[in-house]
Amino acid sequence: MEEDLRQILSASLAAADPAEAVRRSLRVEESAIVAGDERFEADRVFVLAAGKAAGAMARAAEEMLGERLAGGLIVTKHGNEASSERLETIFAAHPEPDEKGVEAARRAEELALSLGEGDLLLALISGGASALLADPAPPIELADLKELTGELLRSGADIGEINTVRKHVSVLKGGGLVSLAAPAPTLALLLSDVVGDDPSAIASGLTAPDPTTLEETQRVFRRYGIEPPRSVVEYLRDAEETPKPDDALFEKVASVVCGSGRHAAEAATEKARELGYEPMLLSTSVTGDARGIASVYAAVIREVLESGNPLPAPCAVVSGGEATVTVRGDGTGGPNQEFALTLAVELDGVGGWAALAADTDGNDGPTDAAGGLATGATADAIRNAGIDPEEALANNDAHAALEAGGVLLETGPTGTNVNDLRVALVSGD
Amino acid sequence: MEEDLRQILSASLAAADPAEAVRRSLRVEESAIVAGDERFEADRVFVLAAGKAAGAMARAAEEMLGERLAGGLIVTKHGNEASSERLETIFAAHPEPDEKGVEAARRAEELALSLGEGDLLLALISGGASALLADPAPPIELADLKELTGELLRSGADIGEINTVRKHVSVLKGGGLVSLAAPAPTLALLLSDVVGDDPSAIASGLTAPDPTTLEETQRVFRRYGIEPPRSVVEYLRDAEETPKPDDALFEKVASVVCGSGRHAAEAATEKARELGYEPMLLSTSVTGDARGIASVYAAVIREVLESGNPLPAPCAVVSGGEATVTVRGDGTGGPNQEFALTLAVELDGVGGWAALAADTDGNDGPTDAAGGLATGATADAIRNAGIDPEEALANNDAHAALEAGGVLLETGPTGTNVNDLRVALVSGD
Repeated sequence: MEEDLRQILSASLAAADPAEAVRRSLRVEESAIVAGDERFEADRVFVLAAGKAAGAMARAAEEMLGERLAGGLIVTKHGNEASSERLETIFAAHPEPDEKGVEAARRAEELALSLGEGDLLLALISGGASALLADPAPPIELADLKELTGELLRSGADIGEINTVRKHVSVLKGGGLVSLAAPAPTLALLLSDVVGDDPSAIASGLTAPDPTTLEETQRVFRRYGIEPPRSVVEYLRDAEETPKPDDALFEKVASVVCGSGRHAAEAATEKARELGYEPMLLSTSVTGDARGIASVYAAVIREVLESGNPLPAPCAVVSGGEATVTVRGDGTGGPNQEFALTLAVELDGVGGWAALAADTDGNDGPTDAAGGLATGATADAIRNAGIDPEEALANNDAHAALEAGGVLLETGPTGTNVNDLRVALVSGD
Repeated sequence: MEEDLRQILSASLAAADPAEAVRRSLRVEESAIVAGDERFEADRVFVLAAGKAAGAMARAAEEMLGERLAGGLIVTKHGNEASSERLETIFAAHPEPDEKGVEAARRAEELALSLGEGDLLLALISGGASALLADPAPPIELADLKELTGELLRSGADIGEINTVRKHVSVLKGGGLVSLAAPAPTLALLLSDVVGDDPSAIASGLTAPDPTTLEETQRVFRRYGIEPPRSVVEYLRDAEETPKPDDALFEKVASVVCGSGRHAAEAATEKARELGYEPMLLSTSVTGDARGIASVYAAVIREVLESGNPLPAPCAVVSGGEATVTVRGDGTGGPNQEFALTLAVELDGVGGWAALAADTDGNDGPTDAAGGLATGATADAIRNAGIDPEEALANNDAHAALEAGGVLLETGPTGTNVNDLRVALVSGD
């Protein structure tokens, strides 16, 4: 079963591959560019690729577009590969924005503003684009934006509230990019690193209408007692509202999620079926404490073994989403490793099952491991290596425990990021 | 859907009713008493009913046995009803044992010892029997047993470790009851209040072989630095081992779980199907933090609405087990109320679903409520009553919030206890 799990993970990662996501979603016809139900007549196509997967997405699009590609820009993280002969590339910083990110945002603005009727902006957006395109609205300087973001992060505001503010002090975010590109239409392919795949949340909604308002921005400041830098106060005094869902602008804009946790999870269920396991996709949006999620998984595995519910063995229980670690100790691990260790402890000695949890970017928490595997024999293997698995769990020290048990999962950087994947296989024997 | 949920809960409680459990499981034939695959030839049947549901179970058995009933004993909690003309009744204390419990245990011992060939002991066991039968092994006194139990509870030992000790310092527990009854065989009907329904765990295994040992008892003392009272030390010095699974004794003993969370959950799925919802029994043994379990439920409900996975609407997601509250604030609530409030917050404004969580004994946590209901409109209803649902959740104050929202679930004492029941209905519209 462990070999089956590895095959399922591979199939899942392949389905979430950025280049594959572009190839799967984009169709280049003689007179139109098509993605899903969206069809754009266009003579010239300009690409703006931004995010950690920008290089791979841009190259895939470049190959498909051939002579239709008229120009464009790649904005990605220092160190990522992004070779293109026909597209300018800017490397910027992530997660803390830098001046290269400011330059990248300006070039993106210029590109969008240069477009006219008959042109199409093909935006290829992946995780990290929000920081890589550092686009404070003048007269706000990058330093002011960073100060404001820092204050928000410390205040206890949630990510939704932080993004509300971010969209209202930026040029490109909250739909700004497509405003600048008009009258040219925009087709956005989004590789989603956001649970739920909401286009207005992915990379702060570069190409999506913004349901939040200036008034809500002020409410966030009041709620958390935040005094924004003077440039922010001044800008917001006369700022225009971000484009809203009913704006006519969006008649010529389409945002298509080309790759996401859903693609990864669905590929996992398909592969599991191919390998002889009846699959069940529990959910693509499971969030919360990794140990709690693992407890529910343990209960489901026990039930399959005991009564054949919720489905009979051999079966596969698949879920996506993004787990968190509730810090109780000072060990090293990540949510996927903690999930695997919890299952190993809760189902210690129980036969007939195996499970895997992995962060699809190959980095679980602050570790180099992607996640971990577990079976009923894992806790024993960890004990035999001299580590108490329950103590390790209590101390959030999953990395060392799984490594000792020989069940650490290491993929290296995968080039994509569509959150976590969890798969439990139950054979019943 | 809320009315459907109430009907499902009623069907579930009816299936877990103690009298119904006895009637469903016991068959009185001309020359034999039958339960499941177990068949006992018996001239005279003696009943020992112990636990919070002892009265109801005994009366059901009395009706079925008629003239075959030769005598017996009911041991139940002060205040419970337990009228029987043919059975002696002793009321004792729970959860802290008292001298009436010591008397009850002695009477139970005498009853068991009085049985001979041709007799059958019909043991009717429900939650609470462990405390109600206060049976320290002489020379251990009740005060010593209470002191030891108190120390164990404070030490951090888990319930499995505490029961290991308990079984080794008792007369009836850990299989002692059936040892005393031999050569008469014992048929035990267990109404399980233990997740997983392990007969050696229900009421400290009065009728089950004891997989734990004297050596393990000493190990628990060492691990937690416990110095047992002198009478315990003396008793354990020469104590005999409890009867083990391979003991020939158990050839004439059968323990049948006649009612449990599984019965309740399966009745819920059947009722849901009858009402037009495709049911899925996720697991009967979900344990852990109520908020974590609710998060997984929220993710599953979202997925049903979004993709028709893990099954298409209209559907019902049912689970049993026992949740806990992770104390973060100083409010009032219980795991089932916290589950309902968490769902209300996480799926605030989302239509097409309704959910219920209830403790089947009618008492969730330290409150008089059994649990709570929730829909996408619940958070708004709570806000309109002047309470912030997220704050209430952060403060573990689910009771007041659900009451304000009009979605507190109150059943009164149900007369049974088979842990928690959670049902989510998704109609999709």
